[in-house]
Amino acid sequence: MKVRLTISFDGTSYHGWQIQKNAVTVQETLKNAVRKITGEDALITGCGRTDSGVHAINYVCSFDTSSRIPGERFAAALNANLPGDIVCKSAEFAADDFDAARSAVKKTYIYRILNTETPDVFERKYAWHYKYPLDVEKMREASKAFIGEHDFLGFASSGFTVKTTVRTVYSLDISEKNGLITLEITGNGFLYNMVRIIAGTLVMMGAELIDYKSAAEIIASRDRRRAGITAPPHGLFLKEVYYRNE
Amino acid sequence: MKVRLTISFDGTSYHGWQIQKNAVTVQETLKNAVRKITGEDALITGCGRTDSGVHAINYVCSFDTSSRIPGERFAAALNANLPGDIVCKSAEFAADDFDAARSAVKKTYIYRILNTETPDVFERKYAWHYKYPLDVEKMREASKAFIGEHDFLGFASSGFTVKTTVRTVYSLDISEKNGLITLEITGNGFLYNMVRIIAGTLVMMGAELIDYKSAAEIIASRDRRRAGITAPPHGLFLKEVYYRNE
Repeated sequence: MKVRLTISFDGTSYHGWQIQKNAVTVQETLKNAVRKITGEDALITGCGRTDSGVHAINYVCSFDTSSRIPGERFAAALNANLPGDIVCKSAEFAADDFDAARSAVKKTYIYRILNTETPDVFERKYAWHYKYPLDVEKMREASKAFIGEHDFLGFASSGFTVKTTVRTVYSLDISEKNGLITLEITGNGFLYNMVRIIAGTLVMMGAELIDYKSAAEIIASRDRRRAGITAPPHGLFLKEVYYRNE
Repeated sequence: MKVRLTISFDGTSYHGWQIQKNAVTVQETLKNAVRKITGEDALITGCGRTDSGVHAINYVCSFDTSSRIPGERFAAALNANLPGDIVCKSAEFAADDFDAARSAVKKTYIYRILNTETPDVFERKYAWHYKYPLDVEKMREASKAFIGEHDFLGFASSGFTVKTTVRTVYSLDISEKNGLITLEITGNGFLYNMVRIIAGTLVMMGAELIDYKSAAEIIASRDRRRAGITAPPHGLFLKEVYYRNE
């Protein structure tokens, strides 16, 4: 049977999703919990890599099991075996050909920026504290250039092999409340660090360190050096993963 | 010169405010930061004790110093010497007779309850996860009994010496959004664990483990055994301290 899990995790204490030597990861922690319940060494496929410190509200992963534990009980059993910073929100049986990574057609990320002079102790792990004034209207104006199909080569960190660097951004919304600026971006896929580089670029545009009118030109340049800095990981949250026919 | 600080802290890693042997406290951590800046061993007076795990949005404390560092620079200097879970929001000179504890006339606390079946990893240190259904209307109805001047002896943990157990609650509001229930209580002072026992009692009333219509009677009984459990510390936040003529 194929099981599909939706989990949430606070990435603060993890070296990202993917299993690594000498570092605690979400995948490994989840694998250990699954082993305790099923007795099996499952190969858990995640919907994508996440970096150290990046969070997930709804991360989807899948694995095969011969265990016949029904969905709801499986989630409760997992939660009893997981640390407090990883929670299984749902577990259900999926089609045999379901693959959390390959079947994904769309993802939504959130990037949070706390734009206040004084840091907020309760946001220190969940938002990038940027204390210099940001012009949210300029960020919003610049964000329009990212919508649509573009070659995002200039918005990717090196170290990843992909067939193409062309991606489609369906929406990029910016909201602000009490100094907390939230970027919400949905696309058919994202290159390595793409959301964080877009966030870093928009912040630099809001701070007038990069001209906000040059967003389209910077994207077209496909030059990483023209984009802004890679925003820190702790402001990033994977919010939702969408699959075909859902 | 008397300095008045407003600080915020995430209480997760601290054994409360007050200096103790063999335990890290907020007072001690702050005292060490003040020593680094002024070279003085200040006696820092807090606006009240807080238990392990309790948080503060605006905690007020005061101390005497011969240092002449002006207010704003003092806050920045402190923040450079404090860990990320304590932030100085403001520092100002105060009247010589100002005392953060004795001059306080009113305090507001918040208690947060996450009433959803599945826990939320991002709230695990900042809200009490109570997974059984709660009737917020019954909690609201019961909360009215706490308003006004009462002898709250039945809503205090032992281990504290006070002249009187009579306190006045000015307001007790309950709001709910997406399963997050927030109690906001303002009073002229609170007994040891009083807010947490009120929160525990209201939750037990919302869960129909205690009759919500008996709130006035339970208060009048002055019997700790008739009130509800002491809600866990991590849902509690000191929100505001008010002083005379402010």
